[in-house]
This record gives sequence, structure tokens and C-alpha cells, in this order.
Amino acid sequence: MSILAVGTVAFDCVETPYGKRDDILGGSVSFLGVAASYFSNVRMVAVIGEDFPESHLEFFRSRDIDTDGVNRKPGKTFRWKGHYLDDINVAKTLDTQLNVLEGFDPNLPDNYRDSKYVVLGNIDPVLQSQVVAQVRAPELVACDTMNYWIEGSNAALLKTLEKVDLLSINDAEARMLSGKDNLLQAAKEIRKMGPRILIIKRGEHGALIFYNEQIFAAPAFPLDIVKDPTGAGDSFAGGMLGYLAKKGTLDSTTLRQAVIMGSTLASYAVQDFSLDRFRSLTHQDIQERFKQFHQLTQFSPDILLS
Amino acid sequence: MSILAVGTVAFDCVETPYGKRDDILGGSVSFLGVAASYFSNVRMVAVIGEDFPESHLEFFRSRDIDTDGVNRKPGKTFRWKGHYLDDINVAKTLDTQLNVLEGFDPNLPDNYRDSKYVVLGNIDPVLQSQVVAQVRAPELVACDTMNYWIEGSNAALLKTLEKVDLLSINDAEARMLSGKDNLLQAAKEIRKMGPRILIIKRGEHGALIFYNEQIFAAPAFPLDIVKDPTGAGDSFAGGMLGYLAKKGTLDSTTLRQAVIMGSTLASYAVQDFSLDRFRSLTHQDIQERFKQFHQLTQFSPDILLS
Repeated sequence: MSILAVGTVAFDCVETPYGKRDDILGGSVSFLGVAASYFSNVRMVAVIGEDFPESHLEFFRSRDIDTDGVNRKPGKTFRWKGHYLDDINVAKTLDTQLNVLEGFDPNLPDNYRDSKYVVLGNIDPVLQSQVVAQVRAPELVACDTMNYWIEGSNAALLKTLEKVDLLSINDAEARMLSGKDNLLQAAKEIRKMGPRILIIKRGEHGALIFYNEQIFAAPAFPLDIVKDPTGAGDSFAGGMLGYLAKKGTLDSTTLRQAVIMGSTLASYAVQDFSLDRFRSLTHQDIQERFKQFHQLTQFSPDILLS
Repeated sequence: MSILAVGTVAFDCVETPYGKRDDILGGSVSFLGVAASYFSNVRMVAVIGEDFPESHLEFFRSRDIDTDGVNRKPGKTFRWKGHYLDDINVAKTLDTQLNVLEGFDPNLPDNYRDSKYVVLGNIDPVLQSQVVAQVRAPELVACDTMNYWIEGSNAALLKTLEKVDLLSINDAEARMLSGKDNLLQAAKEIRKMGPRILIIKRGEHGALIFYNEQIFAAPAFPLDIVKDPTGAGDSFAGGMLGYLAKKGTLDSTTLRQAVIMGSTLASYAVQDFSLDRFRSLTHQDIQERFKQFHQLTQFSPDILLS
């Protein structure tokens, strides 16, 4: 099954305890799309500037990503500059230059409009709604967002959420969006806003998924070296949605596996700067870490009590 | 198998978003002992003042806890006053009155000295070492500690840790004790200090256990109401050690189950003030939540990749 993925393509300048990199490939839909590409065909929707090199687009295409929806516009590509020096789990933004993102008007190529799986990467919720409106009969609309839109574009975000089946946000954002400190209470409120499936990401502590009347708790993979956390959340969403699209079902078994698959892709993404780890990542690597996740979490339910 | 448990017995004054309670039963060994008592006989070592009511001791004895090692001394019982109003996960201490704890000289009753399982609740590491020295041939020495001793009594703590098989501390304390930010690196350093088994507690995010070359990740149980987090860590340790003592083995299956059992007891402890939830808690309740933990974490390892 094909996934339609919309979001940002960016140049990042990043500093972490493991080094400093300038003008590296980043952006929500870059991580989303490449992570999803391990499982499904991806149709990418984004805007880039004149300075964006063909080699990055070729990398996307080498992963069987359709880049017909990536529009090149006069001007410079979106840029983000930040560091993780105080706390490896928290990005500190130093500079944002919207550039061509400012006039982003996501217009889907005709052949994209029959997509069944739609992933709205972290961009303006107004644009997210515009994308959904162009898809004829989506089966699953997934959405990522952030504190910036929760605070600054709340009404537009709430409108987008009405059309969303699956929302993934982090714990602080879930608390902000719902106004509830307790995560169970927060999840209950947020699911009333539209998304019947909710993922709450907790960084190095893993993720919770709420669906039907069930909760599934997934740990993050314990790593001794995290080189660059940028894109972890998008890689998580991409791995998860890619796997869901491949399976073509939302049953409990698949949803749980998809969360672990998202965690698997995210755990690889942070082991190198930019999308570099994905340049050599194989299905065998994915299979291996998925198994390690299983070993990490399994226990026997047969207990001795009296 | 009997467990020897040493720690504090206290009167707590606690305020949480769910209310305020004065002079309620608390202290590390109270939670430890009562949680462990669901699985093993407990021999309690502590000091109390003249103001400590017989009814609390009777509660311990009703749980088959041997209180011969609880010494009543002239003066007042240890008191702690705190609140969880800013963040339900973080206790803010308002007042500590050591009282009889100041002269605590844990002298074990003769029949306690053959204990095989020893749990050193959170007290001065000098006292923890004194207790271990009086036990003839312990099979497992478990220890809990806190930032106060890591910072203030580091040398004494390191000496205690040399005799410890299993250490349970929270993530911030693990980072402080090891000087490493990354938890895998922290765990490696701490296990060099003595404990071959290390539990890193992460509050509402669950716990990690490091043993042999393995890691097991346990989530915390998602609760919509946390009435009073006091004693969660001690209930965790009590449930875990009680279960280990009952099984009488430290194999991988048992260690993993014991972590979930600790999480089970902790999840119940925080649902009411003081030890009140334990006053009605049954084996059936424990069985039920253990099963829910299993449902919370299970997924199929059989994935579809290509």
C-alpha cells in the first residue's frame, strides 16, 4: 500500500555531545518518508529551494520514494539550527529560517489523490487540513504535531484533528493539548477530539499507544551512544505507519508491532547524524533489533503466589 | 524463605492534589516489609519512639511480619513532612525530624542472624553495613539508597555497595552515583562498584533491570489517579524481594517476574495514602494486575518484512 507523506524538508545545523554538523539533510518528511520506505511505497509532498541538491532527492528515490510531490521554489530551503548540549533528550532551537516553507501550498499530483494512508508530518495544521482535503478516500490519516501549533494555532489544529485517525505527540504536548497532567486523563480528552488511536511518545522512556479500550507500553531501545536525536519522532512515525500500510490492517497485533517497529526505526535514526544511519540500514538490521525489543520486554505470566 | 528488612518507620505529613494527611504511617521499612509480606515472612528491624501506637505494630503483625527487631526508644518517632503539589512524581520535603532515628543502632535479634535475604531500606549506609555484618551467611543483599547519601556519605555508601548483590535506585541517582548521563554507561559503572544486579527506577516510566548481560524494561502501570506516591519505591523493592525470596532463585525468568511484581505492589501503594491500600489488598488483586501488566507489554515477534 502507498503512503502519502507531507512535511518539511530541511537543512539542519546540529550540535550534540558527539559533534557538530552544518547543513545536513533534515526535516520531518525526510525522516518520515525514509523510515516508512522500508515497508511501503512513499509519495512525498514537500517544498524545497533552489539550494537543495539533486543528490538528496536521488537518495529519496533510491529508497523508492516518489518525489513528484516535492516542489522546488525560488529561494532557499527551510533551515533549522539547534543543539542538544544541555540535555540529550531536549532540542534547543537556536535559529529557524522558514524560507520557501513560508509560501508552502501543498498541491498533490493527481496520482497521489487515491492514497489510502496519509501521514501529516509536523507542519502548520492549516496545511495538514489542505492535504487531507485533496485525498479522495483515505483509510487512515495519521498526524504529528508539536507545542508550537498547540499553543499558536489551536483552533486550526483542533479542526485538523477531527479528520485524524491516529495522532502521535509527546507527553508534554499531550498534557498541553488536553490540559490534563495525568496521561490517562489526557489520552481520554484527546481521543474525544478525533483520533481514535493515540500514541504518546516519551523519548528515552518509550511510547504508549491507546486504541479501543487497550493500552500498549513500548520501551525505547537502551543505547549507550545517542549521536543525534533529531528526527527520532518522525522516524518513529514513519516506521510505524510504513508497517501499518504494509500490513493493511489495524488489528491489535499489528498496532502493537507497528509501535515496536517505529521504536526500532527511531533507535537506528539517533545512532548517527541526519539520516546517515538509514543509508546503510537493512531489513536484517531491523529484524534483529525488533527481536531484541522482544527480549527486552518479555516475561512469563505464570506466577507463584501461595 | 524469610527476609530481613531494615529501614525507617515514620510518621508522615503528606499533601497531594488528592488531599492532606497528618501523622500517617510511613517509612521505608513499613512499605518494604508490608509489600514483601505478600510473598515471604519478614523480619523487621527499625526504631520507633514512645509515641508510636501499638495498633501500627499490630498491623505489621497481622501481615505475619516479625516485629521483634523493632526497638522502642525514649523520644519521638522519625517524622517526614512533604508535598507533591508541583509535580506528582517529585516529593518536595518541607521538614524532617530524625528524633529516635538519630541514635539508631540496629542490633539484630539472635534468630534474625541466619536470614538469607537481606533488604537494606533507605537509611545511613553506615547502618546498612552494620546490619549486613551481623548476618551470618546472606545469599542476597539488596539495597536502596538516595541522593542524600550519594552526595553526603559517598565513601560509606561505596563500602556498603561492595557487599550488595542488588541495588535499586532511581535514574537521577544512578547518574549522580556513576557520573554518567547515559543510563547504559551509568549501569556499567555502578555494577563495577559491587551490585551484580541493578534496578534503575524511573517513576511513572517504569524500571530497567540489568543482570548478567541482559536488560529487562518494565513499564509502570498507567493509573488515572495517583493519590500519594510516598513509598512507591519501597513497595517496589518489597514486592520484588519478597517474590525473589519466595521463589528462592535468581534465574532470568524469576528476576523479570520480580520486577513486574515490584511494579504491581508499587502501583497499588500509590492508589491511597500511607499504607492504606495494603490493608485490603489480596493475592487475587495482585494476580489480576500482574496479568494486566502482561497485556500492557506483549507483542508478537513474528513480523512481515518483505
